[in-house]
Amino acid sequence: MSEVDTPVGEQAAAAVPARDPEEAQRALVRVQALLEKQRRVESLVHREATPAEEKKALVESLVHRQHLTELKTILDRLHPADIAYILEALPRDDRLVVWDSVKAERDGEILLEVSDAVRETLIASMDREELVDAVETLEADEIAALADDLPADVVEEVKQGLTTEERAQLRAAMSYPEDSVGARMDFEMVSIRDDVTLEVVLRYLRRFDALPDHTDQVFVVDRDDMLKGSLPLDRLLINEPDTKVADVMKADILTLAPLDDVSEAAQAFERYDLVSAPVVDANGRLIGRLTVDEVVDVIREESEERDLANAGLREEEDLFSSVWKSAKNRWMWLAINMGTAFFASRVIGAFEGTIERVVALAALMPIVAGIAGNSGNQTLTLLVRSLALGQVTGANARRLIYKEIGVAVANGVVWGGLAGVFAYLLYQDSPQGVQLGVVMFLAMVLNMLVGALVGLAVPLALRALGRDPAIGGSVLLTFTTDSGGFFIFLGLATLFFR
Amino acid sequence: MSEVDTPVGEQAAAAVPARDPEEAQRALVRVQALLEKQRRVESLVHREATPAEEKKALVESLVHRQHLTELKTILDRLHPADIAYILEALPRDDRLVVWDSVKAERDGEILLEVSDAVRETLIASMDREELVDAVETLEADEIAALADDLPADVVEEVKQGLTTEERAQLRAAMSYPEDSVGARMDFEMVSIRDDVTLEVVLRYLRRFDALPDHTDQVFVVDRDDMLKGSLPLDRLLINEPDTKVADVMKADILTLAPLDDVSEAAQAFERYDLVSAPVVDANGRLIGRLTVDEVVDVIREESEERDLANAGLREEEDLFSSVWKSAKNRWMWLAINMGTAFFASRVIGAFEGTIERVVALAALMPIVAGIAGNSGNQTLTLLVRSLALGQVTGANARRLIYKEIGVAVANGVVWGGLAGVFAYLLYQDSPQGVQLGVVMFLAMVLNMLVGALVGLAVPLALRALGRDPAIGGSVLLTFTTDSGGFFIFLGLATLFFR
Repeated sequence: MSEVDTPVGEQAAAAVPARDPEEAQRALVRVQALLEKQRRVESLVHREATPAEEKKALVESLVHRQHLTELKTILDRLHPADIAYILEALPRDDRLVVWDSVKAERDGEILLEVSDAVRETLIASMDREELVDAVETLEADEIAALADDLPADVVEEVKQGLTTEERAQLRAAMSYPEDSVGARMDFEMVSIRDDVTLEVVLRYLRRFDALPDHTDQVFVVDRDDMLKGSLPLDRLLINEPDTKVADVMKADILTLAPLDDVSEAAQAFERYDLVSAPVVDANGRLIGRLTVDEVVDVIREESEERDLANAGLREEEDLFSSVWKSAKNRWMWLAINMGTAFFASRVIGAFEGTIERVVALAALMPIVAGIAGNSGNQTLTLLVRSLALGQVTGANARRLIYKEIGVAVANGVVWGGLAGVFAYLLYQDSPQGVQLGVVMFLAMVLNMLVGALVGLAVPLALRALGRDPAIGGSVLLTFTTDSGGFFIFLGLATLFFR
Repeated sequence: MSEVDTPVGEQAAAAVPARDPEEAQRALVRVQALLEKQRRVESLVHREATPAEEKKALVESLVHRQHLTELKTILDRLHPADIAYILEALPRDDRLVVWDSVKAERDGEILLEVSDAVRETLIASMDREELVDAVETLEADEIAALADDLPADVVEEVKQGLTTEERAQLRAAMSYPEDSVGARMDFEMVSIRDDVTLEVVLRYLRRFDALPDHTDQVFVVDRDDMLKGSLPLDRLLINEPDTKVADVMKADILTLAPLDDVSEAAQAFERYDLVSAPVVDANGRLIGRLTVDEVVDVIREESEERDLANAGLREEEDLFSSVWKSAKNRWMWLAINMGTAFFASRVIGAFEGTIERVVALAALMPIVAGIAGNSGNQTLTLLVRSLALGQVTGANARRLIYKEIGVAVANGVVWGGLAGVFAYLLYQDSPQGVQLGVVMFLAMVLNMLVGALVGLAVPLALRALGRDPAIGGSVLLTFTTDSGGFFIFLGLATLFFR
């Protein structure tokens, strides 16, 4: 077992998870109260009818110092993730007060936990030296995760302080594309040889000060670091110490490649209930591992990204960023929608003559557009989900398409019929009552069919183009069902009412 | 250490995860090809110009048997989750062929893995006896998860076969509400006393045939099963065997209550990177544990439920359910939207006189409604996200509201101004060109404000009512920005063009 990873020496400051899920929220409320108290004292002191200036400053600084001490006590007991949570929930000025009260050696871990938007504000408040000190406490894979947000010279200086091995790891981690396994893996793992006994493994493990987080297995490698299998800790524990590793190790295990798509790897974790999985290079050499905590983050991030993207938000916003910055974050989307809305408006404009003759059309046309949009969105959502689960293959795609078209026709007949009857009832006193009902019915059936076709075509096209089928489909869909709905409804009406 | 959990005896059939993330997809393609081949043989044989009927049947059954054997070989090597995945992706008849080829003792595990819709079709194809045999192989918490979908008499019969302890666990698991920790916890855990040495613990663990999945810690309890702390496996492994458990155990650990909200527990797992957490009753007695694989499922299910609910799908659909059943799944939503669309239509109807005079209004009004809907949806999405992360507290809610209103006004001025100019340019040749531009501008600003207010009010109201702020907000928002937009725009126009 001669050559193996060096035991993990100095671990970062001990994590102190809360004792129950709501503790972080209570801590936030306490921090807010403390900051509020301090603000009140400050304003009181300032309002006082000018006693000796010095005395005032003294009182203020005393109270301030007391509050800061209390704040520090609260923060020292919190898990970095909880401090991150509190930082997210505070306005800029309060956030920086709290940030300055955090012990410097915890800065790095907290920077890892906060959102991109908040990280930006924190990094902006730190000088070069502070940043270097903060980042130096981290592992290579963690530094890589932060590197994009740091000034280049800070990264450079941190690199100087790394061992050759760590520098190679950092370079590797930074070289993989964002959504790859390589960008999410870590390098802390324990590996052993297969020709030793479990007793030897147990003795070896006792030389560590701590095992890497999420060690549920130790990897079995040969002299060249080629992965031969894995020894799950439970097999290490339930078998007799004189057993050979080779006799109890699992040889057939899931391995990842650094260029694997991380969301596919996440699905594998989900499916096989994994805690960690080895990452090997093209030759089968063990180069890292992916752990379930990263996978949980990936799953959460993907779902958030989708939610944000579908509402047209370019990135998550700092809760307290400026109005101007927030407004700009939303412009791209509003611009696109403005474009499609004006296009739809021009479609209506082309039929102004018809509307002038039968003004009821103006009142009825949004119904045709809206319902088809909703129904098409249902098709889109189901198809996106099936694509994400890998359920759509060449063999069943056609069946799926037929089914959705069938549903659209069935719904078109049912809801188009209802809408037609309503339209007739509303306008039965006008000379065009019956025709309005018929036009409504036909337009609804046709436009719901359009909705279904677009709801099917867009995700399939996005996938064929190598894009995420979950993002951007709805705007195209609404565009078609709006413009198409107006065109179909008003076009039919022009034929009927000429 | 006298009394402790009985070692986990017979584990379910060994899980065989794929060797790489895409293996399941390849297996699906192979199964589909096999089923297709069999179909082709059948149709060929049937088309043949009637040789001896017997011979035909013989050939058919031989080929069929050969294909089935091949199918069974493929299936036997697959992880239950992969078989579940294949079942999901197959049409009904093929699905049942595959289901019948699965070894009976794996049925229970697979039923756990499939979606509700597919589980229904599988259970419907099994007789009472098969169901009892399948369910009997499962743990109490797993039986509880299936119980709702099983015929009552099957559950009753399975109950008879359980030990008293298991029956109590089953009863407990079934008694907790769906979204509680209790409904998701399991009962397989290892617990020890704190007055023994690690050597004793190691010897004790060797008596197990296997440790429960996701055992990253053993729980330290007293004589009455009160939880005193936890011994993480890594502490067990790195410390000397003669160390006392009490000296190395973690006393301050996160504990869950069975009635805790499981999505809050999931956030705790995410924040503190947990693999398992103990569940204790009101007296502090250890009653179960929650593991990260359940948490991953919870996170995924929540995000899917939200996606489906926001598209107005009552439940996930079997990819191959009948057109009629699928259509009905989508009706509630279409009915609601039809109602709101007709209401908006009536708002327009009230201004028919104005539209008759200035028909351009009909072409411009959808723009006002649409853009405000989009902008309000951005506000809604951001607020829902902040609420979900627990970032909105009494102290910062007001700031957040002011900010969103500020953004709405800023966007209203920018985009309303643009839309006003466009409207003017489009209709500059008509006598009402300038007024149209002004009305457009004012209506956009006002309606975007309405959108922001509703986008803020709806999630806060839903939360105050104890409902999920992420679900149902968009339909209310669209309703207000549509009806409100038409009312504001046409109302202003009526004032300008009277």
